[in-house]
Amino acid sequence: MRRGRLLYEGHSKRVLESADADKVFLEFKSDFPARDKHAANGPVKPMLAVQIAAHIFDYLQSFRIPTHYLGLHDESALLVRRLDMIPIAVVVRNIAGGALCERYGVTEGRELDFPIVELVYRSQKFGYPMINESHVLALGVSTPEEVRTTIRIATKTNAVLRSFMERRRFRLVDIWLEFGRQNGEVFLGDAIFPDVMRIFDVESHQLHDGSLFRLGIGEFADAYAALHKRLLA
Amino acid sequence: MRRGRLLYEGHSKRVLESADADKVFLEFKSDFPARDKHAANGPVKPMLAVQIAAHIFDYLQSFRIPTHYLGLHDESALLVRRLDMIPIAVVVRNIAGGALCERYGVTEGRELDFPIVELVYRSQKFGYPMINESHVLALGVSTPEEVRTTIRIATKTNAVLRSFMERRRFRLVDIWLEFGRQNGEVFLGDAIFPDVMRIFDVESHQLHDGSLFRLGIGEFADAYAALHKRLLA
Repeated sequence: MRRGRLLYEGHSKRVLESADADKVFLEFKSDFPARDKHAANGPVKPMLAVQIAAHIFDYLQSFRIPTHYLGLHDESALLVRRLDMIPIAVVVRNIAGGALCERYGVTEGRELDFPIVELVYRSQKFGYPMINESHVLALGVSTPEEVRTTIRIATKTNAVLRSFMERRRFRLVDIWLEFGRQNGEVFLGDAIFPDVMRIFDVESHQLHDGSLFRLGIGEFADAYAALHKRLLA
Repeated sequence: MRRGRLLYEGHSKRVLESADADKVFLEFKSDFPARDKHAANGPVKPMLAVQIAAHIFDYLQSFRIPTHYLGLHDESALLVRRLDMIPIAVVVRNIAGGALCERYGVTEGRELDFPIVELVYRSQKFGYPMINESHVLALGVSTPEEVRTTIRIATKTNAVLRSFMERRRFRLVDIWLEFGRQNGEVFLGDAIFPDVMRIFDVESHQLHDGSLFRLGIGEFADAYAALHKRLLA
């Protein structure tokens, strides 16, 4: 299938129509700093990112987690279900960090006794504020059943990825998950790859912060390639 | 009983020991602007506030809502149970206003299909941020059972007060409720009076905003006296 019309363009991904109305291509863009684009082996991030995402989706599906993933299409795109996106992200935290520490004074790096689950309203205009179930219903953007389903899929995804990471000598600090619906069913959408999570390297004690990859700071290409190697091992 | 040692002093109230270790006095202060203090009939607010609070607590208890209220002590103080306060407030909203509109773009004044319930971390240091149940557990400041109990008492209190207000030609817009524990039981604490709620006057179309009373803007003494008259009618 050839890529069709552009449906959506984000910072690191594009969604394009496919020949099948129920399926779309999720194409990864290079958002590395300019230096990388002129590197000898070209923009390397999309190739690595798409492979990591495909590998993780395959893994999650083996645990019967409903995701939009249908297969690896080519070296820079996945074929996925076309979803009607729910404008609520679910953030799951295993170790205290970031906004949790700033907002409530929890000690950075503290191991949480159980995962913290947060709902975030995916509105750039309102600065991605935290939201609760009763707000979601008042805004009319989802239903109680749908919110419960997204939270259930999110906590299961977190549990499965935690052990996936542990076996690779990483600790999953936190993860940002997005969901959508197709024919009344809820699926995990977006891409599960280093840009949407923070992982702590148990060996080097380095924190891989997805937002660092997105913001373009430091030696990305090398770090990303090393991460790709360990995650796919 | 005579008032004993000062245990806590807030903007509009003081908590003082009584002769009984399980009971304290909740004394109302005058926080009206200076003008009022020199008015002919002296600082009138504490007298009105304590009567409104006693009247509302009596009413809530007639619906078997567990509150800390034990009785009206004198013209400026209630006798209440001594509680170990839970640092989480429950905000219940019936009509969209304030932070709800700023945060998520809900239209100001919109009638909500069902009450919105928010948990707030009562920390001045952190600016009273919104919090969810998993944060509460992670912070170790309450238990799942306690949070469920506070939410249940809060929604019942809201339902009872809504109809109380409607019969007096007011609409309860939103209310801020605080809770505490004594011997393992949860009680509605603080004082339920105009400073902790916003009510809309169906007749004058005026909004009585508790924070206006607290901040000291406008013609308070008169407005408060008029409110007192209608609420106790």
